Parts: sequence; C-alpha cells; structure tokens
Amino acid sequence: MNTVLAIDIGGTYTKVGIVGEQGEILGSKVFDTKAKRPFTDFQKDLLYNINGLLGRLDKAAQPQAIGIGAPNANSLTGNIENPPNLNWGKETPIVDVISKAFGLPVFIANDANASALGELKFGLGKGMRNFVVLTLGTGLGSGIIVNGRLLLGAHAQAGEIGHVNVDPMGRYCNCGLQGCLETYASVTGIKRTVFELIAEMREASPLRRIGFEDLTGEDIAKAAIDGDLLARRAFDITADILGRKMADTVAHLDPEAFILGGGLSKAGDILLKPVKASMEKNLFVAYKGKIKVYLSDAPRNAAILGPAALAWEHISETSGLE
Amino acid sequence: MNTVLAIDIGGTYTKVGIVGEQGEILGSKVFDTKAKRPFTDFQKDLLYNINGLLGRLDKAAQPQAIGIGAPNANSLTGNIENPPNLNWGKETPIVDVISKAFGLPVFIANDANASALGELKFGLGKGMRNFVVLTLGTGLGSGIIVNGRLLLGAHAQAGEIGHVNVDPMGRYCNCGLQGCLETYASVTGIKRTVFELIAEMREASPLRRIGFEDLTGEDIAKAAIDGDLLARRAFDITADILGRKMADTVAHLDPEAFILGGGLSKAGDILLKPVKASMEKNLFVAYKGKIKVYLSDAPRNAAILGPAALAWEHISETSGLE
Repeated sequence: MNTVLAIDIGGTYTKVGIVGEQGEILGSKVFDTKAKRPFTDFQKDLLYNINGLLGRLDKAAQPQAIGIGAPNANSLTGNIENPPNLNWGKETPIVDVISKAFGLPVFIANDANASALGELKFGLGKGMRNFVVLTLGTGLGSGIIVNGRLLLGAHAQAGEIGHVNVDPMGRYCNCGLQGCLETYASVTGIKRTVFELIAEMREASPLRRIGFEDLTGEDIAKAAIDGDLLARRAFDITADILGRKMADTVAHLDPEAFILGGGLSKAGDILLKPVKASMEKNLFVAYKGKIKVYLSDAPRNAAILGPAALAWEHISETSGLE
Repeated sequence: MNTVLAIDIGGTYTKVGIVGEQGEILGSKVFDTKAKRPFTDFQKDLLYNINGLLGRLDKAAQPQAIGIGAPNANSLTGNIENPPNLNWGKETPIVDVISKAFGLPVFIANDANASALGELKFGLGKGMRNFVVLTLGTGLGSGIIVNGRLLLGAHAQAGEIGHVNVDPMGRYCNCGLQGCLETYASVTGIKRTVFELIAEMREASPLRRIGFEDLTGEDIAKAAIDGDLLARRAFDITADILGRKMADTVAHLDPEAFILGGGLSKAGDILLKPVKASMEKNLFVAYKGKIKVYLSDAPRNAAILGPAALAWEHISETSGLE
C-alpha cells in the first residue's frame, strides 16, 4: 500500500501519522510539543516518535514522502520562521532536518494551508474548486483554494485573513497591528469580547466566575447553549464581525463556500447561523444567495490529514497522475 | 498579420479597434455610448463603427476573434447584467449579438478584469504572475491575476474590491450597501470627501466655487498640486483608506504588485506616495517591504488593449500556444 508520513506541529501537541491515499490512518502518535524548549529537544522527540511509527509498519507500507503542517512555515524556504508560540527562534530549517533524517522528499505548508489541502482531498472540499478554510482557534488561520489548487501568491504567503482589519482603532494584535480580525473572531477573540461584555453588562452570567486564562471556548459555547445572555451576545458580536469580513473575502475571491474549523467552530449553530446571516447581509449584490458556509466535519485527531494531503499532492504531481 | 477586434464599452464612450498580438493598434474608432438609449440603438452604432473599421482593413488583417470589455459583463453567460450606468435593462445578450453579426468567436469580461488582462499582456504586468489592478474611475473596478491567469472564482464574479467595507456606518453605495470602498477611493469618492471637508474646514479653497456635478478629479488634483490645503487633505484621506484596504487585499492574495489606473491615478505622486505609505503601515509583518505599487502607464486611448488581450488569451489557448 502507498503511504505518506504526515507531521502536524502545533503550539501544544504534535501529531505524526502514516496516511494512505484515501485518508486511511495506518498509525499515529501524539506528543507534547513543549513549546518552551529549544528546537533540538523537540527534534529528538519528533524523530523518536516517527521511528516508533515506522518500526511497526510493514515494509510494503513504508511512506514515499513526508508532509509537514506547522505555524509560520514558509513553503519556499522550508523553514519555520519566527513562530510566536514556539521558542525556536528566527528560522528553524525543519524540512532540511527531516529530509536528512529519512531520505524522503519533504513538503511543508503553514498549518491553515495544510488544513485547506486536507479539506480538498479528504473533507468537505472534495469536488469543489474554489473555497476558503478559516480555522478559528487560538488565532484565525486561513487557506484559500483557487481552481483546485492552494493559492500561494507571489511570496508563498497568501491567506492571512486573520490579519485583515476590522477597526483601525481596535484591539491590539500579537502581530503588532491593531484591529486584526483574529483579535475578534477566534477563541481568544471571543474571550476578549466576553470580558468586554462583563465590564459593560449588568446581567448575571456563569462566565463572571472564570479568569481570563482559564476561560475556554467550550465554556462560552456551553453557556450560550444554556441560554446565558452574555455568552449569546458574545457569539452574536463575533459572528457579526466574522460574517462582515467573509463578505469582503467573497468580494475578492468569489468562492463556492467557506469551511469553518478550529475550536470555535465546535459551537455549531450558535456560531454558524449568525455568521451566515451577517455574511449574506453584507454581500455585494452579484454574490447574494450563492455562497455556502459549512462547519468542518474533520475530527480533531484528523489534523494529520492536512499535511498528508500536501505530501500526496506533490507525489501525484511528480508521477504525472494529476 | 494576425489580429483581433477589441470592443471597450464605457458609460460615456465606446471604443472599437483592431489589435495585433504585440498590442499594435491597426485602426480604432470612438463613439458616444449615449447610455440613456435602449440597447438596440447602441447596437446599430456599434455595428456601423465596426463595419467601418473592417472595411478599411486588408483581407490578410481581418480579425480572428473578438474581445469585449464592459461594465457588469458576465463571462459565463455572455450578457451584460443590470449595468447601473447603461439604460439597457436586466440582461443584454451582447456576445450573442456580436457573434451572430460577425461569425467569429467572442469573449467578454467585465471592464476591470479586461484591464488586468491588458496589463498582463501589454502593460506593467508583463512578466508578473500575481498582481491586482485597481481602476479608480467613477467607481472602483478591480481585476486579479493569480498564477498568470485572470481569477474568476466559482461564479466568474471574483474581483469586486470596490465593494469591500470601509465603515459599516459609512457612505451609501449605488450597490445598496453602506461604506463600500468605492464610495471613498474613486473619482466620485474623493469628490464626496471634498464636500465633507468643505463642510468641516474653514480654509479658503478654489474647490468651494464648484458644484458637485461639475467638480472633476482633475480639479481636485490640480488644486492639490497647487498646494490647496483642502484638496491635499482629500487626497490624504482617500489614500489612507485605499492603502488600508490594499493591505487587506494583500492578506488574501500576497500579490507581487498593485497597478492603479483610472482617472484618479492621473494625479500621480500626490496619490501614489500616501497610498504606498498607508498600505505599508497596515501590512501584516510577513508582507512588509515586499509589495510594489505602480501607476498604470497605459494611455487613455489604450482601453481597447484589455479586451484585445482577452481575445488573444483565448486564441492562444485554443491553438495550444500557451
């Protein structure tokens, strides 16, 4: 059986897996990224886990290529560059390290771009040629598919929709700008909105008992589903802003659909319905009624399907199958 | 010599021309669109002018295809749909009419998309594979080139950057939305800004003597170049808003460059310098220092080069030359 090795590097966990061409997961492992450590320590854990996986595989199922999804990955240089959530410094030559260790072709993409490729090959994007994936997690990541291919742009940095501007005088963003979309429409963003509303509103809410660092997206979603007014308003504000900016994205790309993933998307209809309504209201007339919005149905442990799709894309290209 | 017939339909003038593959203009004619008349009247003038052109051509130079650039053109249906500035009704089957009249393959694109193709084949976009054309005229039109091709999107309506949102409570737009970019960054937009400033400021200005309908972009540019404070402030406000929204476009597309055309771009450095500064200030860190901004150097009478490039693109495709 033909397989690839997929590596998904996150700020908290790193996942590695062996993946077949239909998305079959032949084996996988998860370990703590321990983001505060230097890269050389992480490298040891990564190689140890991969070798563990490969050791249990049939010879016939050994991977033919490796795909990596990582925050702040540059697909042109093969480096991870200035990751704000990993203590690895300016440039980490991850592709070089992995290709030397395993003697296989290695491909890298930033994590949200890899997710978009995963949706295209294995998920809701199958059969679509133009769509946008937004991952609403700690930040807001995005991957754009145009004509059935990942949009890279002139410097392979296309798709940073988390940093379009909502309000020039708005919230401070980790990137140094002010008012970026991800400071509103992400798990961190809705937490900031909850705290604004706690200051502003008078209504009782279970969320008033939780500190900022402890508050989770699940807490807010649960409160909203239970009818908590403050949590509901937080979702409505978040959805209103996200929908407006999705309308701007449509005015650029005219996609068939958006696929929303990441922690915040787990809230389901309490997010989806007002997002759709806000987007639709703000769409330019030529697009009204034409743009679909889905919540990703990828299970959380499917994070390796993105990097797997990246590796498969390159194998197919090289062998001339596509 | 191989040629194409190019038709550029504007709200005021319509231009037709015979164009070679290097952009040589073998002949051209301009006539009043007379936008208030029904389409059948326009059709008579159009056919009369085209036949006049063709009659003077060598047999060897007769065109092989026809390209049309028009406002609100739908390249999938071949119709012009609900043009706000032409009194032609809901759907005008222009491609059908022209192909029946001349028995040649006919291709249509909205005017700004045709401009982008013109820049790609004959203008500043030669040799670039990813760029964005913004035409700052009565409205703000846009055409997006991705990987050397015009970005169409899922419904062939990509590139309506004039309708991204600047301010949800902002100016009313002809499209029915509020706060669209083209209500600020276009000839009409800067006129609105001038009138806001006349109301707000106390300083004398030659622009105070001109009524809204008579005021032109040239008036404002001339006053600004002469040092008029109000006109300068109008350019600075316009450039600040445009630059901010160009930064959002970069966060989607990561283009190599923007090419600014249309009436407002004739103001030169008085527009270009503050636009560049505002865009640069608002760029996400990954893009800083990487994105170029040019003013189109296409002469005004070169409007037919866009539709010509559209026709050439399709001829090249069919013959397998590209």
